Amino acid sequence: MSCDFLSLALPGVQKLSPYVPGKPVEELAREFGLKPEDIVKLASNENPLGPAPSVLKAVQQALPELTRYPDGNGFTLKQALSERFGFELSMITLGNGSNDILELLGRAFASPGTEVVFSEHAFAVYPIVTQAVGATPVQVPARNWGHDLEAMAAAITPATRLVFIANPNNPTGTWFEQAEFEAFMARVPANVLVVLDEAYTEYVVADDALNGFDHIARCPNLIVCRTLSKAYGLAALRVGYCISHPQVADVLNRVRQPFNVNSLALAAAVAALADQAYLDESRKLNQQGMRQLEAGLTRLGLEWIPSRGNFIAVDVGQDAAPVYQGLLQAGVIVRPVAGYGMPHHLRVSVGLEHENQRFLEALAGVLGR
Amino acid sequence: MSCDFLSLALPGVQKLSPYVPGKPVEELAREFGLKPEDIVKLASNENPLGPAPSVLKAVQQALPELTRYPDGNGFTLKQALSERFGFELSMITLGNGSNDILELLGRAFASPGTEVVFSEHAFAVYPIVTQAVGATPVQVPARNWGHDLEAMAAAITPATRLVFIANPNNPTGTWFEQAEFEAFMARVPANVLVVLDEAYTEYVVADDALNGFDHIARCPNLIVCRTLSKAYGLAALRVGYCISHPQVADVLNRVRQPFNVNSLALAAAVAALADQAYLDESRKLNQQGMRQLEAGLTRLGLEWIPSRGNFIAVDVGQDAAPVYQGLLQAGVIVRPVAGYGMPHHLRVSVGLEHENQRFLEALAGVLGR
Repeated sequence: MSCDFLSLALPGVQKLSPYVPGKPVEELAREFGLKPEDIVKLASNENPLGPAPSVLKAVQQALPELTRYPDGNGFTLKQALSERFGFELSMITLGNGSNDILELLGRAFASPGTEVVFSEHAFAVYPIVTQAVGATPVQVPARNWGHDLEAMAAAITPATRLVFIANPNNPTGTWFEQAEFEAFMARVPANVLVVLDEAYTEYVVADDALNGFDHIARCPNLIVCRTLSKAYGLAALRVGYCISHPQVADVLNRVRQPFNVNSLALAAAVAALADQAYLDESRKLNQQGMRQLEAGLTRLGLEWIPSRGNFIAVDVGQDAAPVYQGLLQAGVIVRPVAGYGMPHHLRVSVGLEHENQRFLEALAGVLGR
Repeated sequence: MSCDFLSLALPGVQKLSPYVPGKPVEELAREFGLKPEDIVKLASNENPLGPAPSVLKAVQQALPELTRYPDGNGFTLKQALSERFGFELSMITLGNGSNDILELLGRAFASPGTEVVFSEHAFAVYPIVTQAVGATPVQVPARNWGHDLEAMAAAITPATRLVFIANPNNPTGTWFEQAEFEAFMARVPANVLVVLDEAYTEYVVADDALNGFDHIARCPNLIVCRTLSKAYGLAALRVGYCISHPQVADVLNRVRQPFNVNSLALAAAVAALADQAYLDESRKLNQQGMRQLEAGLTRLGLEWIPSRGNFIAVDVGQDAAPVYQGLLQAGVIVRPVAGYGMPHHLRVSVGLEHENQRFLEALAGVLGR
């Protein structure tokens, strides 16, 4: 005799729609009978440079220990982060990607009856994390596609536990300035945790851009999340981290799975942090590719949202779903963002020059321009 | 102005004591000024064979895609599991180690006001998972160090959502027979999920041993968890999975992080599943090492718990803490299990012949026998 197992799940979990990732190349190849090498994937904000030789070497060196558990404390990686950014080990929490960090925060501090504040058009994982623990999501309308920090501060109530803000934001690429952020933090009560998601910060080139790390000492309720999946090129391996007050890190480390970060990820991350040349090259390639996409989209007569990330959201001037499908048939994978309240936009990651070109040509074809 | 951030965490999280892993070799080397190559680690039930060449090859082949996200659906690995064990893809959930699976179950189905049943001397992650979600732990006294399935069935109330049982159990190595299990399942209500943890099942050689997979079809409320961290030798990479009713798998996949299993783990797991020779060799080595440890411990006049795992719990006849420390000083890491209600026992993993020998000699020295 069976039973309705879905009805046994927590109410928040029952209503949960999982995160929809970018379509993998192999999946598109299977579905459309295409050759994987003919497919261009600009769907997941991945680093198009390919792995750094320094990282590959570090992974190779870690292979003999594959049958051993990882160091659950991630000592060597924490030490490398500490030396690079100047924070005590006790302020660092490592995650299985920064997704893991965002989830740990939700599970440690939010629950039914509490509220979590985030912006319209923000990263899908914020509402997912909120819903999974049964907390109340408070979505604040965006301003020009970006965070309205004044409205977000005003949305905080005595029930608020967490506020997620992203700079730059995914999938819009929008950002806020240092002065705006400081005015916002001044309004947030000391017992409300602000999670500043800086997954794309390494791509920001503006000299006067906000750097969350500069505010950690002054703002004990600030948590800054970063990832090695983007500019550092380690998406496959899953490494993210956050810097916070040691007491917050202590809480997150209680909730964290003991071996959440695998051994090869730990080794690769240490190597990636030390490889400034790869990071510089990633940044430079992104700048060039972004200019190429902006110019190409403008030539097609399309509007796009100015972005500080490694992706750009373009308004295709119609329901984007058939355009997405047309691009798939042409072997180009981008990301539909209707689920982010942007049904006329597609998010395109910055790729190599020929990949960007291939996308622009395919888009022109699909739109008949 | 700061605040007491611990007090902001959920009540269950505040009381949480994190899992204590086996001491890593590098950590002992740092603390005691020893050379890593002189240290024998028999603390984490790791496979002493070292990585399989087939696995290393699969990892190598996956390296060019290090900057790409993993396949969030784990299609290829699920297909390999499906072919190997004969279950539909829709019945498989992949985890970042089976620890991840155990946690997903807790987060999906348990919450404050519900109860989770497990045995005394059982795996520490069961109470940790229970506490983290604020559910009520119901620990049932063991019988001869093993599960008392009758008492566990009797401990089920209308508030029970999950029952964790392990066969063989860690850290005791104890097991239950098929008939006991069937009688137990017959008593469990259809709306209570039974999680059968078979992390060590590949080491079991008895012909008539219980195989959870044989009971999946008849028991829709049964979830069987397995891992590739032990006999398959992939502890560093983190891969576990469970087989369940598709509706339970659907729930777990809603709660699961989209990229919980990394790309190298996915590739390595497919190779490991196909490498029957490595599995056979692991099993054989374990049998030989187990006989060696049993004989050696008996020669030392010590009592040990008969085990079907790749580890053995030995009663050192006194408070085990100083014995553990003495072994550390001799460069041998084993696992203290006082936290499991076994203050006079140490858990020793089966290693290579010379490692087992080194442990037995060090133990004789520490105990002065």
